Amino acid sequence: MRVDVVFSPAALAPGALAGRTALVVDVIRASTTIATALAGGARAIVPCLTPEEARARVPEFPPGEVLLGGERRAVKVPGFSLGNSPREYMGERIREKTILLTTSNGTRAVLAAREAVALGVVGFVNLSAASRWALDAGRDVTIVCAGELGGFSLEDAVCGGMVVERLQRSGAGLVLGDGAKAVGLLFRHYDGRVSEVLADCEWGRELARVGFGADLDLCGRVDCLSVVPVLSGGRLVPAPP
Amino acid sequence: MRVDVVFSPAALAPGALAGRTALVVDVIRASTTIATALAGGARAIVPCLTPEEARARVPEFPPGEVLLGGERRAVKVPGFSLGNSPREYMGERIREKTILLTTSNGTRAVLAAREAVALGVVGFVNLSAASRWALDAGRDVTIVCAGELGGFSLEDAVCGGMVVERLQRSGAGLVLGDGAKAVGLLFRHYDGRVSEVLADCEWGRELARVGFGADLDLCGRVDCLSVVPVLSGGRLVPAPP
Repeated sequence: MRVDVVFSPAALAPGALAGRTALVVDVIRASTTIATALAGGARAIVPCLTPEEARARVPEFPPGEVLLGGERRAVKVPGFSLGNSPREYMGERIREKTILLTTSNGTRAVLAAREAVALGVVGFVNLSAASRWALDAGRDVTIVCAGELGGFSLEDAVCGGMVVERLQRSGAGLVLGDGAKAVGLLFRHYDGRVSEVLADCEWGRELARVGFGADLDLCGRVDCLSVVPVLSGGRLVPAPP
Repeated sequence: MRVDVVFSPAALAPGALAGRTALVVDVIRASTTIATALAGGARAIVPCLTPEEARARVPEFPPGEVLLGGERRAVKVPGFSLGNSPREYMGERIREKTILLTTSNGTRAVLAAREAVALGVVGFVNLSAASRWALDAGRDVTIVCAGELGGFSLEDAVCGGMVVERLQRSGAGLVLGDGAKAVGLLFRHYDGRVSEVLADCEWGRELARVGFGADLDLCGRVDCLSVVPVLSGGRLVPAPP
């Protein structure tokens, strides 16, 4: 099994995901939010590129079943029911709902990677479950870091490194591309200190500055969830057990 | 002084280099080849996007002064005088010559980064000189890794990490972006073991496989040159002392 990592969807060459499993990482916050929603009983998350697309697709769903969610510059899109805080994606509010979600980086990365044979979403919260899912699929894996507006995000890279470590720990013979080697080394530096990554990284600091510091705690809870959001017919739904 | 790193030119957002110094890294081999040529007395290197562009521009230069150089898939472009091996860019052959150079990643990265206020080329061979040049310029720095066909290259990232370390060692107060933090951590792993990076990385292994292993030795000679190739009027020339 070969494992590669790209640090932003912009680095995905055409055809790069052919025959592969993609694991999309946007630790702060889309991966965490999506996994939290599906673990809490949301029916599906539909990734949308823009707020306009999300609004336009509402009529596709039964009235009362659908919610609009998402952010730009960390703040809830005006008129939407939900922002991009995992705290909003819990409880009765989201149960049995389909959520049309548009975020600056995470949902964009999912859409950029949809050519993969199978696509799962991973964050610290569902690290082991998602790694196991990718391993069981038996295909080569590309870890697609959402990054930040086309650039590199430390927290996504470290989470990618933890996936590499989980895959290696399984005893599968892995061939690591340069990116996978690099994130493995980054993981070793932050091993056991996930909260430090979230405090060190630029996006974590910015999010804390604008009042979403409590979200960082949720994003850093390693393996608190066992759900793996997988793409099926354009919707993210829980992988079958 | 702020330091950022992008892992491929594809990750350069429009305007990202405004007001900044760019340091372009393509350790294997364009950075090494360009620095070797200018250290050996070549007049200038003119980065060209394609072999066609290089051929078309020959008439711009006095007859006898110009040479065509470059590679695709590591191999010399058919009909060109020179490939992309630093060993070819030494001695009488290149002295006082202007070389129209086109490579798969390095010259492409130079062209992608030309909006920077100042652009220098760095490899292991001129690490300290190029770091000092960027430091003396006093502007924020973006290290632009050439990468491999839009993707991540370990050797360029580690070289970028050595630049970060050189800048930090100078005592300048640096603000590190996520990418700069990451390459700093990668550098620490490979500190003092440059030849190991070149043996570990995918492109180094491929180059050795196709018969260019001797080039890797040249690419790994830390600080053997004091020249800094800088872009001036579309040509790379030695920075003034």
